[in-house]
Amino acid sequence: MHIVDLNCDMGESFGNYRIGRDDEILKYVTSANIACGYHAGDPSIMKKTVKMAIEHNVGIGAHPGLPDLAGFGRRPMDVSEEEVYDMVVYQIGALKGFVDTEGGKLQHVKPHGALFNMAAKDSSLANAIAKAVYDIDPELILFGLAGSELVNAGKKHGLKTASEVFSDRTYQQDGTLTSRREPNALITDHEQAVNQVIRMIKENKVQTLQNVDIDIDVQTICIHGDGESAIEFANYITKALKESEIELQPIAKFI
Amino acid sequence: MHIVDLNCDMGESFGNYRIGRDDEILKYVTSANIACGYHAGDPSIMKKTVKMAIEHNVGIGAHPGLPDLAGFGRRPMDVSEEEVYDMVVYQIGALKGFVDTEGGKLQHVKPHGALFNMAAKDSSLANAIAKAVYDIDPELILFGLAGSELVNAGKKHGLKTASEVFSDRTYQQDGTLTSRREPNALITDHEQAVNQVIRMIKENKVQTLQNVDIDIDVQTICIHGDGESAIEFANYITKALKESEIELQPIAKFI
Amino acid sequence: MHIVDLNCDMGESFGNYRIGRDDEILKYVTSANIACGYHAGDPSIMKKTVKMAIEHNVGIGAHPGLPDLAGFGRRPMDVSEEEVYDMVVYQIGALKGFVDTEGGKLQHVKPHGALFNMAAKDSSLANAIAKAVYDIDPELILFGLAGSELVNAGKKHGLKTASEVFSDRTYQQDGTLTSRREPNALITDHEQAVNQVIRMIKENKVQTLQNVDIDIDVQTICIHGDGESAIEFANYITKALKESEIELQPIAKFI
Amino acid sequence: MHIVDLNCDMGESFGNYRIGRDDEILKYVTSANIACGYHAGDPSIMKKTVKMAIEHNVGIGAHPGLPDLAGFGRRPMDVSEEEVYDMVVYQIGALKGFVDTEGGKLQHVKPHGALFNMAAKDSSLANAIAKAVYDIDPELILFGLAGSELVNAGKKHGLKTASEVFSDRTYQQDGTLTSRREPNALITDHEQAVNQVIRMIKENKVQTLQNVDIDIDVQTICIHGDGESAIEFANYITKALKESEIELQPIAKFI
Repeated sequence: MHIVDLNCDMGESFGNYRIGRDDEILKYVTSANIACGYHAGDPSIMKKTVKMAIEHNVGIGAHPGLPDLAGFGRRPMDVSEEEVYDMVVYQIGALKGFVDTEGGKLQHVKPHGALFNMAAKDSSLANAIAKAVYDIDPELILFGLAGSELVNAGKKHGLKTASEVFSDRTYQQDGTLTSRREPNALITDHEQAVNQVIRMIKENKVQTLQNVDIDIDVQTICIHGDGESAIEFANYITKALKESEIELQPIAKFI
Repeated sequence: MHIVDLNCDMGESFGNYRIGRDDEILKYVTSANIACGYHAGDPSIMKKTVKMAIEHNVGIGAHPGLPDLAGFGRRPMDVSEEEVYDMVVYQIGALKGFVDTEGGKLQHVKPHGALFNMAAKDSSLANAIAKAVYDIDPELILFGLAGSELVNAGKKHGLKTASEVFSDRTYQQDGTLTSRREPNALITDHEQAVNQVIRMIKENKVQTLQNVDIDIDVQTICIHGDGESAIEFANYITKALKESEIELQPIAKFI
Repeated sequence: MHIVDLNCDMGESFGNYRIGRDDEILKYVTSANIACGYHAGDPSIMKKTVKMAIEHNVGIGAHPGLPDLAGFGRRPMDVSEEEVYDMVVYQIGALKGFVDTEGGKLQHVKPHGALFNMAAKDSSLANAIAKAVYDIDPELILFGLAGSELVNAGKKHGLKTASEVFSDRTYQQDGTLTSRREPNALITDHEQAVNQVIRMIKENKVQTLQNVDIDIDVQTICIHGDGESAIEFANYITKALKESEIELQPIAKFI
Repeated sequence: MHIVDLNCDMGESFGNYRIGRDDEILKYVTSANIACGYHAGDPSIMKKTVKMAIEHNVGIGAHPGLPDLAGFGRRPMDVSEEEVYDMVVYQIGALKGFVDTEGGKLQHVKPHGALFNMAAKDSSLANAIAKAVYDIDPELILFGLAGSELVNAGKKHGLKTASEVFSDRTYQQDGTLTSRREPNALITDHEQAVNQVIRMIKENKVQTLQNVDIDIDVQTICIHGDGESAIEFANYITKALKESEIELQPIAKFI
């Protein structure tokens, strides 16, 4: 029997603006990465999303991003290690405020967008993030791209880490995701996406775009909550995993 | 022997901008109200200010404000009770992040500027703030204008409260501060300012602009950290209080 | 034959967030009020919306709001006359940048949300807005609630003004809109909404919630671009007006 | 007789925060680069600064930056060409609003900080900026680092350009400024700084850190308005230039 966590970014609405069907997707996932007001989210959205996550017994994660609402945290910025440490502490602290007032427990931290990608490759930024997480609470679990500097940094700091894979993205020989600017970056076929994930879980292998198998570690799978077929795919992958005797649990339950 | 707390707003710099001589003023005060990134402050300033407050054994307070950096949180906004609750939780949580990582302990909460003034008169907003503070941590001390709805709301929620007086402001018969738009709102003479405070502490009385004595409760005195004579006045008032056998202690030590 | 302008707020998306079906609604309206980056909108949205308005031969208006993206410019703020003057100049200037680069012509200015409502009642703020519009370009047309201080201020400054009515809102005896917090503020029945507008145009009368007829001036009608039935209602009202021999033209064509 | 322009960044205060002594520095410079609300500045500061520049007969420039108030526009961001075009149009338009209402004339555009540096090396971003400036008004003069891609892009688009040199920075053999992260990046001695500038103007040469002379073009010199000795240096350089028979004029007067 295999066990894996299924996570989704959420709480990414802002003020009058709505993104994602968080209430629907929460029925399928086991962990939620909740935006903290920098790249998306605001205090009211954060409270509401934390409350919903608790109601669904879903593991709660802080999802800190770059201070760039206009760019949704997706534009790399030349931030220093200290700036990254500080902005991660700020955002985790803010989310923890709502986790405390709603009577929940913070399970994990997953950086967002450009910060996630920068920390996958840049060990200095990765260390700044890992240190911030550890300093806030050494029991928190750090999510990072499987094989990334962020996972390494988490381990180095004595944190529990979760190697994350993407169901709908293709991989390169060095274990990184194919850039969205390249052709074939996305896997749009649901069956193909799920088969890739199941193989990752059962065999710890993934076939790269270059048709070579590489090793991959996986404790958590990322799915998306926005987009037309998000709910449909959430339904599809959870059924398929169950049929393949892969159990879904929040990461804190089995790591 | 009387004991009183002496507090000052700080950590109100932002990015490349500097306001206040926090490092100097910390030598005089016993409690620090640290901005949380809404009306002023940013993660790096917050960390640095928390660190300095710990070094000076000064009580640490969160100083949440309205989301209005351009107006320094001084422009009243028509925010709902729920919005106020949420923004207060967010900001206390964020500051608590740094208090935790720096190994300190959060002592109190004091709303800033327009939020402080609105909560002095509007019991709904006052209750929203008191509830937010209580829900985060019922041991936190809530600062409010002496005689205000905010102090009432804090007591109603079971919080310890600190009635705050201003050394450099004149009072009206209803116990409110004279509006800054009125003449004689400010007391610029240092001796007069300090005498008013000493009488408040020893006799629980203050003479209003209408030359009538009213009762006033005082556990903490607010002084300012910016302005030309801020450090000079801090020095003057701390000496004068000592000479009048009034001891200065962080609020948590004697309440 | 009657002529009237039909306007809609648009360009209110922001970054990754989408609100309103501007491309659809532009087929029906004759004037567009384009957000300028304060309550909503960003440079890319502004450019795109200006471009679309030019393609549809729709009159282009600046739609300046309060600096409150989180509150969508709907929360009244205590801003000074000078602050209002300055923020209106800034926002009109910014939009005019795109109107110039896209080869269009700025037709009008309509304040947004809380700024619109505050300027309806507060003659000081109304004058600040009217002066800003006049100083930028005295040929610009100022939109204001029919019977409001804003329309008065525009006339006083020598601007052409457009009295605006709302198809889907009920009126009070003093000519103001029924507050959204009151019951019966909204008219949800399309036929009733359109009948109210047609009577305003043809008879210059509207029946208030108190069942009394009052006089009302109308040069432009506001419809909404978001909401489920926005496009359907736009289609319905434009047909109904045509059938009642009311011609739709951008305000600059007939004022 | 040589003629040169002397420029300074200004209007970089924000809300309650003050940076630079603009009123003092305006007595010395011939052109002012006024922040437009992205990296610094707000509508009230912009109006006040435009007004002061007009009073001092100083050439007015828009000084657009990256949308990063917290980082003062100094942190490179991965923005697209289209985003850059749009943010430059927005900011020039906003400043032009105040230039129009105050009865002045916009003379030039100089990008700020990271945007200036990125556009010095990246021809795509440089072209986006040049196109934005040209589309707003082809008579505007574009400021760029001497020898940079930005100056090239301006010429390519048919704009008048001004090659800018820095009095207080050292140069590399490829004509770029020594990075502030390197030792010897800054020239702190006033006499040495001014001698470098005078040689640039009279001989079109500068000695690099590698002790090699390179050619350099110069139409405008940048000085700084903040820092302890800013006013003193402004006084020193203007006197020294005059004594060397170098006349100071706003760029539009002699280009």
